Amino acid sequence: MSRTTVTRLREKQSVERSVLDALLDAVHVGHVGFVDDAGLPRVIPTAVVRDRDRMLLHGSTGSPWMRRLAGGAPVSLAVTAVDGLVVARSAFESSIRYRSAVLFGSCTTVQGADKLAALDLITDAMIPGRVAELRRPNERELAATLVLALPIAEWSLKVSAGWPEDPDEDVAGQAWAGVVPTVTRYRTPLAAPDLRPGLPVPASVRALPTDQPASTP
Amino acid sequence: MSRTTVTRLREKQSVERSVLDALLDAVHVGHVGFVDDAGLPRVIPTAVVRDRDRMLLHGSTGSPWMRRLAGGAPVSLAVTAVDGLVVARSAFESSIRYRSAVLFGSCTTVQGADKLAALDLITDAMIPGRVAELRRPNERELAATLVLALPIAEWSLKVSAGWPEDPDEDVAGQAWAGVVPTVTRYRTPLAAPDLRPGLPVPASVRALPTDQPASTP
Repeated sequence: MSRTTVTRLREKQSVERSVLDALLDAVHVGHVGFVDDAGLPRVIPTAVVRDRDRMLLHGSTGSPWMRRLAGGAPVSLAVTAVDGLVVARSAFESSIRYRSAVLFGSCTTVQGADKLAALDLITDAMIPGRVAELRRPNERELAATLVLALPIAEWSLKVSAGWPEDPDEDVAGQAWAGVVPTVTRYRTPLAAPDLRPGLPVPASVRALPTDQPASTP
Repeated sequence: MSRTTVTRLREKQSVERSVLDALLDAVHVGHVGFVDDAGLPRVIPTAVVRDRDRMLLHGSTGSPWMRRLAGGAPVSLAVTAVDGLVVARSAFESSIRYRSAVLFGSCTTVQGADKLAALDLITDAMIPGRVAELRRPNERELAATLVLALPIAEWSLKVSAGWPEDPDEDVAGQAWAGVVPTVTRYRTPLAAPDLRPGLPVPASVRALPTDQPASTP
């Protein structure tokens, strides 16, 4: 069976590239799986950013696992969003609202002008507009950074966005059921202890979505 | 080299079990890595709950990957918290505040009375107090659920909780630096479309931490 075929809860599988892209553009930490020298599985969290039809990863040239991936080792990359709790009328039916993408393939190393553009894209994905506020990367920094690209070619996507699916006898009972959505927000920026006096919080940081009072559904 | 030895940014490694437990008790979605029949890596997100010296996973007896894990396949389990953005004075020094645990080992199947207790623990970890509000699992539900335990024995932990570490020439420049903490909150509960009229939101759901206006640091 293909590893992109969802075997459980098939009704949650999505093949919409637009749904995949929305997830990949919203979540910037992924989990990379690979097989180590001993044939054992490894999972490592890392920052990931979508660039058209590829996922960008970056790290130190001194990182053993980055070098393994640069060598073309097969990888599995999971990008997951937790969107809420599905509160059912039984423990059995209780679950989570989520979006889960898993990509498969091998990475290539991004080099030259493409590497510089990729690093800018990563920086601006984490904090939109930040690149314009910063000096350019220097040669030493570029040499110390490895940028990898994983094609968005072989992937599966599962979306759980529904309501509790309790049997009739539980619906008729006394237990409450519903969904509690979760939201992740930025809080008030904290200045670095060594920040020079008088430097204001920049526009890019001020534009990050901050805490809001709870809205009425 | 041992797979629990942190090779990069060693100063971020922690060997404190209390720090590990705090992370495992705060984050209830982990990423499980394993090797498939073709020798290729797979990563799957799943709910995880700590029970003393073991991590509990649960799923359907019909899930191929759960059955593979029940058979003793080697696994790697990553549990990750993203705590904020480290906004440095260069793209190179910009990073993420995070806590990252990776556990290694093999799962055993939890059975009998231990299984029932484990399922209660999982339910109450996701929504504290929920078990007391629900009917007990029935035989059919128990038979359809596989509960696995991964010992907390071989693990590594990395914590990034600091500030930008910019070189002096950048500190002397015009760029702002600091940290933008992130927080994940529950929003106002939404009643299921088929909820019987008059059933109030239960105490367990009301007690979940909801959105707060931004606090002043």
